[in-house]
Amino acid sequence: MSSLYCISLADVEAAQSHLHGLIHLVPLDQLAGRRLFFKCELFQKTGSFKIHGALNAVRSLALAAPGNREQPKAIVTHSSGNHGQALAFAAKLEGIPAHIVVPCTALLCKKAAICSYGARLVPCEPTDKSRAEVAAQTVQEKEGVMVHSSRDPSVIAGQGTIALEVLQQVPQVNAPVVPVGGGGMVAGIAVAAKALRPDVRVYAAEPCNADDNYRSKVTGELTPNLHPPGTIADSVKTNIGPNTWPIIKDLVDDVLTVSEKEIKQTTQLVWERVKLLIEPTAGVGVAAVLSKQFQSVSQEVKKICIVLCGGNVDLDSLAWLNPPGKEAN
Amino acid sequence: MSSLYCISLADVEAAQSHLHGLIHLVPLDQLAGRRLFFKCELFQKTGSFKIHGALNAVRSLALAAPGNREQPKAIVTHSSGNHGQALAFAAKLEGIPAHIVVPCTALLCKKAAICSYGARLVPCEPTDKSRAEVAAQTVQEKEGVMVHSSRDPSVIAGQGTIALEVLQQVPQVNAPVVPVGGGGMVAGIAVAAKALRPDVRVYAAEPCNADDNYRSKVTGELTPNLHPPGTIADSVKTNIGPNTWPIIKDLVDDVLTVSEKEIKQTTQLVWERVKLLIEPTAGVGVAAVLSKQFQSVSQEVKKICIVLCGGNVDLDSLAWLNPPGKEAN
Repeated sequence: MSSLYCISLADVEAAQSHLHGLIHLVPLDQLAGRRLFFKCELFQKTGSFKIHGALNAVRSLALAAPGNREQPKAIVTHSSGNHGQALAFAAKLEGIPAHIVVPCTALLCKKAAICSYGARLVPCEPTDKSRAEVAAQTVQEKEGVMVHSSRDPSVIAGQGTIALEVLQQVPQVNAPVVPVGGGGMVAGIAVAAKALRPDVRVYAAEPCNADDNYRSKVTGELTPNLHPPGTIADSVKTNIGPNTWPIIKDLVDDVLTVSEKEIKQTTQLVWERVKLLIEPTAGVGVAAVLSKQFQSVSQEVKKICIVLCGGNVDLDSLAWLNPPGKEAN
Repeated sequence: MSSLYCISLADVEAAQSHLHGLIHLVPLDQLAGRRLFFKCELFQKTGSFKIHGALNAVRSLALAAPGNREQPKAIVTHSSGNHGQALAFAAKLEGIPAHIVVPCTALLCKKAAICSYGARLVPCEPTDKSRAEVAAQTVQEKEGVMVHSSRDPSVIAGQGTIALEVLQQVPQVNAPVVPVGGGGMVAGIAVAAKALRPDVRVYAAEPCNADDNYRSKVTGELTPNLHPPGTIADSVKTNIGPNTWPIIKDLVDDVLTVSEKEIKQTTQLVWERVKLLIEPTAGVGVAAVLSKQFQSVSQEVKKICIVLCGGNVDLDSLAWLNPPGKEAN
């Protein structure tokens, strides 16, 4: 190598010793006043945590049909998008046709992704009633099996594997913080985490505008949202249900609620500072930890693991971003 | 734990065994036809790789001034943003005032970040001449030391530590792909990589609209851009220079150029599929590897490491995004 260059390998090695310990990323710990870990489920196949539950559900169905003779003829679900994508992918892997009932208000990018995995889109109205009715009808027509996004026990167990991964990767964690729609993820995580580490505190996080979980915990009774909730966190518009509620009632320590403004600001903060393209629903968990409310949580809860549940964002509908110059990187 | 729940820890553990090997993210390998690794410099402090060079430069200056008596009175540079942010941060760490000369066309988010690290912004015209003149004047006024973003040997050596990290983390890598503006990063990487692993091929990537490196390699003579280049890759508008050129001439195997359309489409692809908020300049390297041109690179070059050089994006100026519905997640 020429000695005429302005640097040599020795200079680079000296540089490495100069940098030792100086380059380390902790972008939001200071804001939270605690050590934050991010479980990056947005990096999963199909862009969200839903793949855990979907794969386990479809795999369980396939395993229950020995020799492929009684393999389900079709797999059906209703979904605002992420569970639909995951189930479409999982069904394709097992070679089973999938029919996904999707509310007409679902994000374009999520609908397109469901199709790209070879599943059939079945449109419905954006209400629990319409979703359930159209799905039941599709099950009948196609002689299919329904795999509900948060009621199916095999889906809930699949989401619970996220807790096994977190406790293995960061054994010192005190508390997972989990966004809640139907509650499948928080229920699965709570069952696994409390069984293995009873000292771990499990927090649910949800939009104020879709606070059925919060109201259910306060009243002690399953209390669904009466109207379709208006929230930018499109993945948590569904209600907790009969299978997740008993688990949430007993094993979730607290439910934190955040405003639409907090969700939007925090999602943008994560984009700008953490450089992860989370979807607003993942921002719900981060917003909860950065909220004033969370400051009253005992300082013994030092190490928080926020589940960044997904990253499926419509890049073409970003009108909610802050005006220029408000935030620096 | 209640036996009335629909799942138990055993179900979650069974689910984990079902999922084994099915959840694994390789979102762009198929498109590239090779194994891709991403060196995520967007996660570094100040949001880009520039922190390596800036910290080494400022540390080297501080170490050269024993007992703090001859510590520089000020540190000065000119920068379109990322080097400015990094130097501002590094200077603050050593307690030395920093003055950053910034072209008036630099991104708002980068200017705001420089200020947030306590440095003083000095505006200039977006030409090499104006940048150099205003910086020289500032050095004189403040009795400062100039730390050039790609000419300073300690900066180049600092960027070279990226190669040490890559070769340690992914020893089997065949080729790093590095976006090039002034060429400090590719020069540092080339010196370190070729010294340690002469078989490694080093690729530079740059916009067609700012192809001084490509034209210099073709002609064998340092051939700067005559006019300020028009490219969305704002971090690589500068020319390679007298210190980086001899290294690039000898040690960089090839220079790949990509169009503005390729940069935009690939940046959006990385956002949508990889969920990393890279800046368009980082998209230059990915676009080069996904280009038709790269398909003619020997298939022996199996394992590519693309340096995702930064993630400082103005979220408020995303007008270049594709119209709705073009891409699914």
